[in-house]
Amino acid sequence: MAIDPGSIFSKLGAFTSDHESVVSMNLFVALLCACIVIGHLLEETRWMNESITALAIGLCTGVVILLTTRGKSSRLLVFSEDLFFIYLLPPIIFNAGFQVKKKQFFRNFMTIILFGAVGTLISFGIISLGAKYVFEGLNLRQLDIGDYLAIGAIFSATDSVCTLQVLNQDETPLLYSLVFGEGVVNDATSVVLFNAIQSFDLSHIDSSIALKFVGNFLYLFILSTLLGVLTGLLSAYIIRKLYFGRHSTDREVALMILMAYMSYMLAELFYLSGILTVFFCGIVMSHYTWHNVTESSRVTTKHAFATLSFVAEVFIFLYVGMDALDIERWSIVSNSPKKSVQFSSILLGLVLIGRAAFVFPLSILSNLTKKNTHEKLKFKQQLVIWWAGLMRGAVSMALAYNKFALFETKDRKNAFMITSTITVVLFSTVVFGLMTKPLIRLLLPSPKHLVRMASSEPTSPKSFIVPLLDNGQGTESNQSNQNVPRPSSLRMLLTTPTNTVHYYWRKFDDAFMRPVFGGRGFVPFVPGSPTDRSNH
Amino acid sequence: MAIDPGSIFSKLGAFTSDHESVVSMNLFVALLCACIVIGHLLEETRWMNESITALAIGLCTGVVILLTTRGKSSRLLVFSEDLFFIYLLPPIIFNAGFQVKKKQFFRNFMTIILFGAVGTLISFGIISLGAKYVFEGLNLRQLDIGDYLAIGAIFSATDSVCTLQVLNQDETPLLYSLVFGEGVVNDATSVVLFNAIQSFDLSHIDSSIALKFVGNFLYLFILSTLLGVLTGLLSAYIIRKLYFGRHSTDREVALMILMAYMSYMLAELFYLSGILTVFFCGIVMSHYTWHNVTESSRVTTKHAFATLSFVAEVFIFLYVGMDALDIERWSIVSNSPKKSVQFSSILLGLVLIGRAAFVFPLSILSNLTKKNTHEKLKFKQQLVIWWAGLMRGAVSMALAYNKFALFETKDRKNAFMITSTITVVLFSTVVFGLMTKPLIRLLLPSPKHLVRMASSEPTSPKSFIVPLLDNGQGTESNQSNQNVPRPSSLRMLLTTPTNTVHYYWRKFDDAFMRPVFGGRGFVPFVPGSPTDRSNH
Repeated sequence: MAIDPGSIFSKLGAFTSDHESVVSMNLFVALLCACIVIGHLLEETRWMNESITALAIGLCTGVVILLTTRGKSSRLLVFSEDLFFIYLLPPIIFNAGFQVKKKQFFRNFMTIILFGAVGTLISFGIISLGAKYVFEGLNLRQLDIGDYLAIGAIFSATDSVCTLQVLNQDETPLLYSLVFGEGVVNDATSVVLFNAIQSFDLSHIDSSIALKFVGNFLYLFILSTLLGVLTGLLSAYIIRKLYFGRHSTDREVALMILMAYMSYMLAELFYLSGILTVFFCGIVMSHYTWHNVTESSRVTTKHAFATLSFVAEVFIFLYVGMDALDIERWSIVSNSPKKSVQFSSILLGLVLIGRAAFVFPLSILSNLTKKNTHEKLKFKQQLVIWWAGLMRGAVSMALAYNKFALFETKDRKNAFMITSTITVVLFSTVVFGLMTKPLIRLLLPSPKHLVRMASSEPTSPKSFIVPLLDNGQGTESNQSNQNVPRPSSLRMLLTTPTNTVHYYWRKFDDAFMRPVFGGRGFVPFVPGSPTDRSNH
Repeated sequence: MAIDPGSIFSKLGAFTSDHESVVSMNLFVALLCACIVIGHLLEETRWMNESITALAIGLCTGVVILLTTRGKSSRLLVFSEDLFFIYLLPPIIFNAGFQVKKKQFFRNFMTIILFGAVGTLISFGIISLGAKYVFEGLNLRQLDIGDYLAIGAIFSATDSVCTLQVLNQDETPLLYSLVFGEGVVNDATSVVLFNAIQSFDLSHIDSSIALKFVGNFLYLFILSTLLGVLTGLLSAYIIRKLYFGRHSTDREVALMILMAYMSYMLAELFYLSGILTVFFCGIVMSHYTWHNVTESSRVTTKHAFATLSFVAEVFIFLYVGMDALDIERWSIVSNSPKKSVQFSSILLGLVLIGRAAFVFPLSILSNLTKKNTHEKLKFKQQLVIWWAGLMRGAVSMALAYNKFALFETKDRKNAFMITSTITVVLFSTVVFGLMTKPLIRLLLPSPKHLVRMASSEPTSPKSFIVPLLDNGQGTESNQSNQNVPRPSSLRMLLTTPTNTVHYYWRKFDDAFMRPVFGGRGFVPFVPGSPTDRSNH
């Protein structure tokens, strides 16, 4: 029943020979629809969220397929990293950059980098070392140093989607931007880390290799960011220069999508990290390009990117749920069920410790740099941040497949690693995920919370009717107009001392960047052009 | 340099082994961007249009690649029918159904079916028979009856994209809807016809087989239409029932896209014509589903579908341009250049005759059924319709590849057929295409014409600011609000006697369909819901 989605039909049109793959494809699309519908229906319940729904539907389908194929297979699709890293991950990360509240993100930039990059490295170190010492005590001697480092990278990749569905962007802007920002930087860091490990000869480590490793890491980080920024600026410049006075929504949208994708492909071309590139391309595009296009284009890109990202996420969880029941793998592991459980619980424990080991110290460090008391992270907030990054998800799965899926069915060690990863992902997503909503209500009680849950728009993007109907000046970034009128965030904005870096950046932006690349208030007046109706 | 876009990278992330394919992919995306930008810049010129621009850029790139690879290859991508029939064609056809002016389409339904289905069959018969008699005189005896029928189907598939870019939907609504509608029905008919030919044993034809063939054709046509309508209605029903009072733009958009795609896949599942299904699914979705979603969703779906379709079209022409320079094929044919030219010009001549043979007689037939003089098709209009369908494009190419691309390099006949198809496509698109704008200006002179050319939005979708900002009742279908206030179309609407079928359909629609499936004015009032702000 397994198919490669890249070549679904071997023949044209109605008389296709590969009828089974059409059946699979239909089933899969129908399941995606089911996930969306059921996820919407379950939105109001206390425990569930979209990820868990998709996982559960995937598991149920897996069971049904297992029964109908008499235990031969549980999958509709063969997992391919290509599918994940080329088609599913880029839209998710790009959308993250595109929808992030830039003001909050850059205000907390240092803390986010601290958590996302330094924190991930700490977590990586603890999990790698912990795995090495514990597993060597358990006589799992087949694992070499490269495997331990890979385990560290795999299990330091967090999945904060669940938490973001529960946190409220307007009530807890600080927490939301920290969790969100950390999640993105963490994704990028762990993939860069994983790639760096894969490409280095790790059989004998000395200080010069370690230094080279750090140098390589920084090189990747900085160049990838620069490439993303440059591609974003290029798109802003092209659209601004070409479409002066004459707008064409479809061409603008097509150009934005193509250039976003091209930033990812260019990063691959130069052996850089596509994830970081596409993330910063998203930020730049939402800061400049997005303001140079028609209002229809704005609404379209906003929701098209969010929808792509949403479908990609549901796709991944649905897939992981189905793949979890691969019978061959479990039969290899089933000889030693005790060892398998031991192995997975040790990994889960290491994940818990590894995250605690950087969230609390780094929070204290971050608090030291802040003067205002209410800007500091309270212990309850630190707990939420800690909890928010405990889930392991699609990135972990994809990295594990990449490292261990070769000759998987023949090799005991590899089967063991994959099943352990699946166990950790399933357990953390379902058990930790189910506890998230109640935990956050307990730690951050809010009278508005219940009201918000019953209303709409669970994922990051917001409805666009308000910015379209009012023609106010307040639309600084994409969403800050929803932020500014709220007394809580307004007060916060006034009482906190303006970050000097941010201040000089704004001056530079207004003096040099926006006149060239466009942006709010810097799009020239064209009579009849919809872009400018809201500005004049 | 050739790659299969379904499996672009063999390894993860930055350290991919297949670096050449990344280079190709980057180049291809960059070329797409270039086509869009240059197409926009050349829009105001008298001769060019987007298709010709993409073809020209493709040809130039092909030359450059030929030179850099020293004559080995001219392509960045291997043409795959899968890519065309699964990823590129469905969005184009779905968008055609989604954006069609339904009132005009259904008012001229009989004429469109007459041209699209009966006309294509006539054209198919003439080209097949003509090819048989002429080529048998030329001693091309390798061709069998199946080949002649395939030639008929391949060269009766029109490509009216060029013409639609030039015709004005508001000035000449009748002509526009006829050319547009005929193009879509023709696409579907020729693919259905081609599939029917492929699956039948044509070595001995008698009356019972011919009858079976006609039965099969009608069966495909009717069931495919029904399936499309049912899927569309299902999507309307689901969204209407589920989202009562609680709207989520991303989920709505995702559901619409997934269900549109599923209609295509379901048709494949039941061995029906996906093209017809997805076209009627598009019509039903724009009539019911589209009215049940939020305003953001409406703008997003409208432009997202149009953009997808636009990119797919540019993609196809860019590809055909590059593929036209495949050196291997031409070297096989180059032994007999005279014969090759003869062959292609005969095919072109047959295309011209085949189209003339049904446009003028069927126009007269259609005129007989109409009472009002100004509803009848004048000779100049008939000429425009004839001209509009002379171009051969992507569908012809895809069908030709499907029939003749197996063992192509070894087989002389197949290489011959492919190069002839390329020649006809290139010649008709470039030469006929370049003459279209001047010809239409000559035949249908209009003072507004020049003004319109200088403004924006070349392809079918229109800007959405107007329907978003006015909260009128006039938004009957997606675009009729732009149509209704115009005196010309309003006058036409009042003076023509209301078609009785259309009248009863409206009564039925209002009494039974809209209360169940939603639609304009039948979405229940939900306080604060954006859908209803415009209706109350």
